[in-house]
Amino acid sequence: MIRITHLLLDVLKPLHPNVIEFSKALARMGNYQIRLSVVEMDSKTETLQIEIEGSNIDYEQIQAAISEMGASLHSIDAVAVENDPTEID
Amino acid sequence: MIRITHLLLDVLKPLHPNVIEFSKALARMGNYQIRLSVVEMDSKTETLQIEIEGSNIDYEQIQAAISEMGASLHSIDAVAVENDPTEID
Amino acid sequence: MIRITHLLLDVLKPLHPNVIEFSKALARMGNYQIRLSVVEMDSKTETLQIEIEGSNIDYEQIQAAISEMGASLHSIDAVAVENDPTEID
Amino acid sequence: MIRITHLLLDVLKPLHPNVIEFSKALARMGNYQIRLSVVEMDSKTETLQIEIEGSNIDYEQIQAAISEMGASLHSIDAVAVENDPTEID
Amino acid sequence: MIRITHLLLDVLKPLHPNVIEFSKALARMGNYQIRLSVVEMDSKTETLQIEIEGSNIDYEQIQAAISEMGASLHSIDAVAVENDPTEID
Amino acid sequence: MIRITHLLLDVLKPLHPNVIEFSKALARMGNYQIRLSVVEMDSKTETLQIEIEGSNIDYEQIQAAISEMGASLHSIDAVAVENDPTEID
Amino acid sequence: MIRITHLLLDVLKPLHPNVIEFSKALARMGNYQIRLSVVEMDSKTETLQIEIEGSNIDYEQIQAAISEMGASLHSIDAVAVENDPTEID
Repeated sequence: MIRITHLLLDVLKPLHPNVIEFSKALARMGNYQIRLSVVEMDSKTETLQIEIEGSNIDYEQIQAAISEMGASLHSIDAVAVENDPTEID
Repeated sequence: MIRITHLLLDVLKPLHPNVIEFSKALARMGNYQIRLSVVEMDSKTETLQIEIEGSNIDYEQIQAAISEMGASLHSIDAVAVENDPTEID
Repeated sequence: MIRITHLLLDVLKPLHPNVIEFSKALARMGNYQIRLSVVEMDSKTETLQIEIEGSNIDYEQIQAAISEMGASLHSIDAVAVENDPTEID
Repeated sequence: MIRITHLLLDVLKPLHPNVIEFSKALARMGNYQIRLSVVEMDSKTETLQIEIEGSNIDYEQIQAAISEMGASLHSIDAVAVENDPTEID
Repeated sequence: MIRITHLLLDVLKPLHPNVIEFSKALARMGNYQIRLSVVEMDSKTETLQIEIEGSNIDYEQIQAAISEMGASLHSIDAVAVENDPTEID
Repeated sequence: MIRITHLLLDVLKPLHPNVIEFSKALARMGNYQIRLSVVEMDSKTETLQIEIEGSNIDYEQIQAAISEMGASLHSIDAVAVENDPTEID
Repeated sequence: MIRITHLLLDVLKPLHPNVIEFSKALARMGNYQIRLSVVEMDSKTETLQIEIEGSNIDYEQIQAAISEMGASLHSIDAVAVENDPTEID
């Protein structure tokens, strides 16, 4: 089974919802740890660096959640995947 | 249960209460560890970087305590949240 | 037996497949851990730094997989190999 | 109980008492570890960075001891506090 | 017994054999771990930094292998040796 | 009991005695570990950074030994002291 | 007993003997670990940084060995000594 264990995302979001609500919404998608840092801020938007760690991250669900909160995923800056052949997909 | 475990706040405060009293007031909100650094100081105000660690940080309560001491929360610079599905919200 | 345990590759790829699919395809080649970072991005391509760790990496298979996804391997920037004489080739 | 566990102080002191005597006087206030570095020195004064670690630092007593030795506390540059609700104040 | 346990070599090699084959050839000389990084590359040659770790590295054999592959050893940038008098040479 | 556990000294010494003899003389004062680095050297003098670690360093004795070797203690750049109230002075 | 446990030497040597032979000769003096780095090289000489670790380094013997190989000890850049009073000199 191929599992995503780490994602580093560059995201532009409006100021609302704030980073607390934003982080919580992403964590809610799975058993994830989220570390969010604000890289830049102007009067209407924030650029975020979001690190997501988990044993099996569902990228499509994360992507959908980001869009639903009015934010846009600018790039996937890093990804780590593991292959454990003892697990069946 | 979604829990906030780390907050990094950028706060502007008047010189009084001093950083000792300010830190203690925040720690009093919960079973928190507070690390406060003075980033800039002028004759009337101090810019603080405040790190709060705890197993379940109550952001709204922290926010209220900052306001009550006459300080203003400029930004949330980082946040870490965890999702532990074995706990019920 | 001579085994490759680490590869650091500099790869240019078109934007599609995205880095998620790209990483998964490489991990699928063996019991590998993949760490992929986007070093540069323009409107049509991405330059990737790809680290592959495994106990016995099949370089030819990795090379073939990269080509099949329309990407080109610019250089092998680092490699680690081990020789364990107690194993027979 | 709210306890101060770390203090980082910026202190200006005359050359006498020297840093050895100065450190010892502060350590004498409690079961503290003191790390003192001389940041700047001129012919009459020294600017010190003083780190104090302890399980429960008495800030007022430290402040008084600094004054009694003819030095002045310029700023509290960092403070760490802990809240352990299982202890009664 | 005096044993070489670490070598850091600066090597210029033609593009063929590639760094995979080059590393494997060196590892084959003994029970070595090889870490090879490409420091510079032009159209015909690559400058390599090669770290070799082992419990007893045979320098002459390494040197000969480098020459046989058409590469030239520019310098030995670091070496670590150990003397264990309990072993007989 | 207040004990000095660390000293960082800035010392100017003539070239003789050399740093080997100088270090040994300081270590002889107690059960100390000495780490001495030459920061600057000219034709007649060397500027040394001397770190002394011990469980209970006798500063006056160190100071006297430095003078007796014709060197001068320019400054005490850092000091660490501990207070262990369970020990009687 | 006062023991030297660490030496950092700045040495200028002719290109022959090479750094392999040079390191081995120093290690042969005692139960030492030698880490030698080439800091600068010109057509006739190499400037070396040599770290020697051991439980009881014989400085005079090291010094003599360096001279015998046609090299010159430019400076002792660092030294660590320990005093263990439970051992008799």
